[in-house]
Amino acid sequence: MTRQQLIDQIFKKQSFLCVGLDTDTKKLPDHLKNDEDAVFKFNQQIIDATAPYCVAYKPNLAFYEAAGLKGMEAFEKTVDYLHENYPEHFVIADAKRGDIGNTAALYARTFFETYNVHALTVAPYMGADSVIPFMSYKDHWVIVLALTSNPGSKDFQLMQDVNEEHLFERVIRISRQWVDQNGTDNLMYVVGATQGDLLRYVREIVPESFLLVPGIGAQGGSLQEVCKCAMTRDCGLIVNSSRAIIYADSTEHFAEVAAQKAKEVQQEMKMLLQK
Amino acid sequence: MTRQQLIDQIFKKQSFLCVGLDTDTKKLPDHLKNDEDAVFKFNQQIIDATAPYCVAYKPNLAFYEAAGLKGMEAFEKTVDYLHENYPEHFVIADAKRGDIGNTAALYARTFFETYNVHALTVAPYMGADSVIPFMSYKDHWVIVLALTSNPGSKDFQLMQDVNEEHLFERVIRISRQWVDQNGTDNLMYVVGATQGDLLRYVREIVPESFLLVPGIGAQGGSLQEVCKCAMTRDCGLIVNSSRAIIYADSTEHFAEVAAQKAKEVQQEMKMLLQK
Repeated sequence: MTRQQLIDQIFKKQSFLCVGLDTDTKKLPDHLKNDEDAVFKFNQQIIDATAPYCVAYKPNLAFYEAAGLKGMEAFEKTVDYLHENYPEHFVIADAKRGDIGNTAALYARTFFETYNVHALTVAPYMGADSVIPFMSYKDHWVIVLALTSNPGSKDFQLMQDVNEEHLFERVIRISRQWVDQNGTDNLMYVVGATQGDLLRYVREIVPESFLLVPGIGAQGGSLQEVCKCAMTRDCGLIVNSSRAIIYADSTEHFAEVAAQKAKEVQQEMKMLLQK
Repeated sequence: MTRQQLIDQIFKKQSFLCVGLDTDTKKLPDHLKNDEDAVFKFNQQIIDATAPYCVAYKPNLAFYEAAGLKGMEAFEKTVDYLHENYPEHFVIADAKRGDIGNTAALYARTFFETYNVHALTVAPYMGADSVIPFMSYKDHWVIVLALTSNPGSKDFQLMQDVNEEHLFERVIRISRQWVDQNGTDNLMYVVGATQGDLLRYVREIVPESFLLVPGIGAQGGSLQEVCKCAMTRDCGLIVNSSRAIIYADSTEHFAEVAAQKAKEVQQEMKMLLQK
């Protein structure tokens, strides 16, 4: 998916919501728990119900791997279902992969060829050769962890060098050099909604890049605050919500309630886009 | 596996070799290529041939994920095969996972319960809550990326703060605090064989910890140099070799040749252990 296609979807739907498909077998509604194909069926109903209100879906691989081979089968079926029925939705595999060059190339093959997702989250700790192999896939996106939403983000990401440059800034700055080498800019960055003023600061460093913003909802970040700090003319934001939407209800009505929650966020986004 | 059990194995076998099972479907010997179960059969023969000369096996998940569901099935079968036939070998899942607290807990469940591997490699970029959930599993090991063997290790891991502390040192220092909180020391660190004097420096910071050392063989690091810099009274090292052993030959004799290569490394290790 190109940058322009993503922007078009955002303005057409008046939404920059990403629904996180963190489908935990232990949190499924009772009536699905004994179903052989429970994870996929749960996702399918969540997707059908929320598709009008969001532009992206983000399955986190941890939840699928935790269920073993059956879980990975559910991941594959979910991605196929999205491609077939909702080809205009942006599909992000949240896998936070990162390994040496030849291994990174294999991960790229897995996610961008075998599963053919639009985007993959990547951890930058191992540097250039752990990220660049993903960037050679045209119209696919690499979403680099910069400043994450969790408490542990303080431990290393906020480390400063003698010039007061933080590690997360260095990650962004150095990765811009890879963009220059690569010739196309298919990088986005993960920046947590819980980061306040630092989110504004990231926006100054990358005035055009899309940011994937987790941390609203269960983690406590504010959508309005995120937009005030980092929204651009092209929107420039994909804001994720997982638990607050998909687990809003645990009865047979879970999908309707999820749709309602997604719609509430979309309505707020519509106002923010029109400001 | 406890620390003492690992040490006992090392001295009993006079080896601290880990064979990396980076089994790439594109590099299999011709006679196996059309076999439905090629990856597992390749691993099984490599394991049977090299087991006398090594103390650990390290499948890198990237290679299994790249082959989709069949690949993950081969990973599962390989781990089961090791548990059943070689219960004294230390099994490391090289997955370099790292995610926020609740997700890290799921990854821990996957690798330490579902697959029941002894150890998992973990990326530290996201800080405390991305690593600590793995540490609560007794007799399982968390192997934190500190200073990796690849060229990109220079990009961020060597960043220095005002006190000249590098990021990799900070990762080690802060993770020692988690050990204190956790009460047991089940952390090891990845430090590349290609890092020369910095390896010696890591050993000064963690005089007792086991280091998992990739980078000899195809990546060019020297075993003698590694031992000079970082071997302890308890050995304290697990040195990995992947490509130089498992792809040493691509004919029907691949397993015999792999055994020969593993034996050569083991013989060198024996001399180094006796110094």
